[in-house]
Amino acid sequence: MRRIGLVIAFLSVLAAPAFAQKAEIETVNAKWVDFFNKGDFAGVASLYTKDATAFPPGSSMVKGRAAIGTMWKDMAEKVTDPQVITLDVKPLGPSAAREIGTFSLKTKGPTPQAVTGKYVVVWEKVGADWKLAADIWNEGK
Amino acid sequence: MRRIGLVIAFLSVLAAPAFAQKAEIETVNAKWVDFFNKGDFAGVASLYTKDATAFPPGSSMVKGRAAIGTMWKDMAEKVTDPQVITLDVKPLGPSAAREIGTFSLKTKGPTPQAVTGKYVVVWEKVGADWKLAADIWNEGK
Repeated sequence: MRRIGLVIAFLSVLAAPAFAQKAEIETVNAKWVDFFNKGDFAGVASLYTKDATAFPPGSSMVKGRAAIGTMWKDMAEKVTDPQVITLDVKPLGPSAAREIGTFSLKTKGPTPQAVTGKYVVVWEKVGADWKLAADIWNEGK
Repeated sequence: MRRIGLVIAFLSVLAAPAFAQKAEIETVNAKWVDFFNKGDFAGVASLYTKDATAFPPGSSMVKGRAAIGTMWKDMAEKVTDPQVITLDVKPLGPSAAREIGTFSLKTKGPTPQAVTGKYVVVWEKVGADWKLAADIWNEGK
């Protein structure tokens, strides 16, 4: 029994980083949605690394925390109710991870439409916090 | 002078992985374009990790080397002359890297149109080779 316990403990240690990173990243994503819904785009921006890049479909890439905050503020004029589902988090060393997920949102206006899509985020750990470092998405789930 | 030489040697060691990874990744990208132009989609597929994911705009994500080969084969019915420019490669530990770049291609048909866009690739080193592990792009340069 002790041997089985040791094996389980060993497997838990191996699996722990991926599980922990996924949970931590989902927590940041929940904060992202909460900031967005409250219209707090400085809050949204604070979740990105200082030199992060975002890749909005149909326009140029957006670099840096402040510009990314402005991008989401402008986006919030057109869309609402963002939701994200993390499908997979792959640790890439102790201070980076790759997330794959899907999102949905609704367009604003007289005839709101649902938009669904998929995304990849490269996360970097800055101090104790996971931050979005590259954020790219497109339509089609 | 010896001290300056040591400082330069030290800085070179620090900078070397990023430069080396960028050069290696650009070489793989050149192979990707070459395979695509020759219609060798098994070749294109071989540049991805076995469990890679691709994220074509407007449709579902595509998982695995074989499915990704088929995706590009289908894509080649509609587009031609892909070109990619690597803007930035960030090492994420010894066996992963994040690439940011732009691409262009032309649609096929009676009135070919130029399409430009941007992309993020998460690369993983498998043995001696850098392979695309996540490949996502959208329009708008």
